[in-house]
Amino acid sequence: MEYTAVKLVKRPVLNITPDLFEVVKLQTPELEEGQILVKQTHMSLDPAMKGWMMPDTDSYIPPVGLGEVMRSSGLGEVVESRNADFPVGSRVVGLIGWTEYAVSNGEGLNIVPAEIPAEAILCVLSLPGLTAYQGLMEMGKPKTGETIVVSGAAGSVGSLVGQLAKAEGLRVVGTAGSDDKCRWLEEELGFDKAINYKSANLRQALADATPDGVDLYFENTGGEIQHAVFERMNAHGRIIVCGMISDYNTDSPSAGPNWINIVRKRLTIQGFAMPDHWHKIPEMSQKLAEYLMTGKLKYRAHTLHGLESAIEGINLLFTGGNTGKLMVEL
Amino acid sequence: MEYTAVKLVKRPVLNITPDLFEVVKLQTPELEEGQILVKQTHMSLDPAMKGWMMPDTDSYIPPVGLGEVMRSSGLGEVVESRNADFPVGSRVVGLIGWTEYAVSNGEGLNIVPAEIPAEAILCVLSLPGLTAYQGLMEMGKPKTGETIVVSGAAGSVGSLVGQLAKAEGLRVVGTAGSDDKCRWLEEELGFDKAINYKSANLRQALADATPDGVDLYFENTGGEIQHAVFERMNAHGRIIVCGMISDYNTDSPSAGPNWINIVRKRLTIQGFAMPDHWHKIPEMSQKLAEYLMTGKLKYRAHTLHGLESAIEGINLLFTGGNTGKLMVEL
Repeated sequence: MEYTAVKLVKRPVLNITPDLFEVVKLQTPELEEGQILVKQTHMSLDPAMKGWMMPDTDSYIPPVGLGEVMRSSGLGEVVESRNADFPVGSRVVGLIGWTEYAVSNGEGLNIVPAEIPAEAILCVLSLPGLTAYQGLMEMGKPKTGETIVVSGAAGSVGSLVGQLAKAEGLRVVGTAGSDDKCRWLEEELGFDKAINYKSANLRQALADATPDGVDLYFENTGGEIQHAVFERMNAHGRIIVCGMISDYNTDSPSAGPNWINIVRKRLTIQGFAMPDHWHKIPEMSQKLAEYLMTGKLKYRAHTLHGLESAIEGINLLFTGGNTGKLMVEL
Repeated sequence: MEYTAVKLVKRPVLNITPDLFEVVKLQTPELEEGQILVKQTHMSLDPAMKGWMMPDTDSYIPPVGLGEVMRSSGLGEVVESRNADFPVGSRVVGLIGWTEYAVSNGEGLNIVPAEIPAEAILCVLSLPGLTAYQGLMEMGKPKTGETIVVSGAAGSVGSLVGQLAKAEGLRVVGTAGSDDKCRWLEEELGFDKAINYKSANLRQALADATPDGVDLYFENTGGEIQHAVFERMNAHGRIIVCGMISDYNTDSPSAGPNWINIVRKRLTIQGFAMPDHWHKIPEMSQKLAEYLMTGKLKYRAHTLHGLESAIEGINLLFTGGNTGKLMVEL
C-alpha cells in the first residue's frame, strides 16, 4: 500500500522552511514476526521539534538524521499485527513520525483506551501533559499558598502547568502573547491573572499580579519575561526551565540575567527534558487521567488537516499563531 | 577602658572608600549578669562584607545599620565574664565586628580549643571553611572521577573547595588571577590544573584542562569564566553559586549566559548563603577539623596589622591583591 511520509533533508539555519523537507511516497512492507503496522490518525507538533532538526548539539536526544522521516509523537490505530501485545484495532500513542503509516515492533508505543478523545490524548496524556507534570509536580514541588508564574502560559505545556498549580492551591499568574489568550487563561482555565507580555509595562503588570513576589517560575519562553520574573523571585525560589521558545528561532540568543540574585535569594534553577523520565510515564499518565476525569484539566486543540500541512504549520508555534495544542489530523 | 571601633557611616556607591567609615573611641561598659567582654585578636575580612554595607536588597542578611560598628567575624579572648559558659581566658569565634573589644551575651559565639592556630581558625574553621563544605559537600554532592571547576580558586573559599574536592577523588581545575596564584594551587594545594583567567585564550585553556567536560562548577567570581565553563557543562551538571566577586564592585553587572543550555544539558544551578545553614556549624566544624588534622587542607593567611588597616585593606579582596585569606591581627 502506498503512503506519504515527510523526510528531513536539510537542517534549519534559522527558521523552519519548506526546503528542509521532502515529501515521499513509500510502500508498506510485509510485516515480520513481532511487527505491527500503525495508521496514524493524529500527529503532534511541538516546539522541541526545532531542536531535533538542528545539528548535534550534545542535547538530550540525538538529532533526526538527514534523509530520515521527521520525528514526532502521535496517535494511531493498529491496522495489521504480528504482535500479540498490539492486536488489530488497538489505539497506540508514541513516537510515530511525520508519516501516514509506520511499522514498529511496539517499542515506545503505549495502548490507550478507546473512550478517551484523540485531542485529550495529544493535549494531556502525551508529551505536553507529561512535561507539565514532571516539571511542576516532581521538580517544582509546589506548595499551597505560593505564587507561580508560568511563561508561555497559553502553550500546550504552560496551560496544563497553570491548571495543575491551581489544583494545588497556588496563586497562578501566566504570560501570553495576546489579549485573547489572556482571556482564555483567566476565564476558561481559572488563572488568577494573565499578562499580555507585549503590553506596555511588563514589569509593572507583573508586580501588580504578584504582590507577594514569586516562589516558583515555570519557564517556557525566555526573553524579557525571564528577566522581569527573575527580579521578583522570593528567597529560596525555584525556577524550572522547560523551554526557551523565544530563542529557538534566532541566531543570537538573548543574554540571561546576572547571577548575583541566585546567591542573594538562594535560588535553585533546574532544567529538565522528558527523555530522562520516560520510565515514569505509566505512573504519570495515570495521575493525569485522574485530573482529566475530575474536570481539573481543560485543553484546546488547534488542528491542521493532512500530513503535509505540518510543513508550514509548525511555524505557528514560533510565531504564537496557534490557539491551543497544535496537531495534525491525518 | 578606652578602645577603638570602626563604624559604617555611609553606604558604598561603587567602591569601598575610607569616607564610609568613622573611627571612634569607646569605653567598655560595666558587664551585666550573663555578659562577657571579648578582646578581639584576629578579625576576618570577607567579600560578603560588601553586600552587608549596601542598602537593603532583600538579601540573606540585613545590611549593617548606618552608625553601627561594621560587621565581621573574628577570634577573641574572653577577658571579663559574668557568664559561666564563657570563663575568662576562653577563645571564642563568631561575629565580633570591626572593634578591639565587644560585649556579648555569648549568643553566636563558639569556644575553640587553645591548640588550634588563629590562622587555621579564620581560614578553615569559620566562614570560608563552612562555606566551602556546605557548598561543595552538602549541595554539590561530588562523586569520585568527576571534573570540578572552581573559580576564584586562590580565594579563601575556593582554595578549600578545591582541596576538599581533591580529597573526594575529583579532577580539580581552578581559575585565579595571576601565575603566582596558579603555581600555589598546583604545587602546594594539589590542583590538577590552575588557569590564569587573564591568559590570552581562556576557552582553549579550559577545554585543554577539562577533556571530559565539567560536571560540577563552583562559582565564586562571575565574569568571562562563568560563560566559558557554562558552555562546557556536561549533561546533568551542577553549578553551585557561592559568590560573584567580579560584579560586586560594578554598577553594571555583566549579563549571564542564555538559559538554553540549562534545558539541553538538564543543569541544576543553586545559590546558597551560610546564614541558612548556621545550625549545621558544629557538625561541619568537626568534619573540617578532621581534614585539617589529617593534613588534607592547607591554608595561607594574608595578615594586616591593626584595626584601622581594614579600612583600606578590604579592597585587596576586590583587586585580587591578597595572597591568602585576608585577616587583621589586632
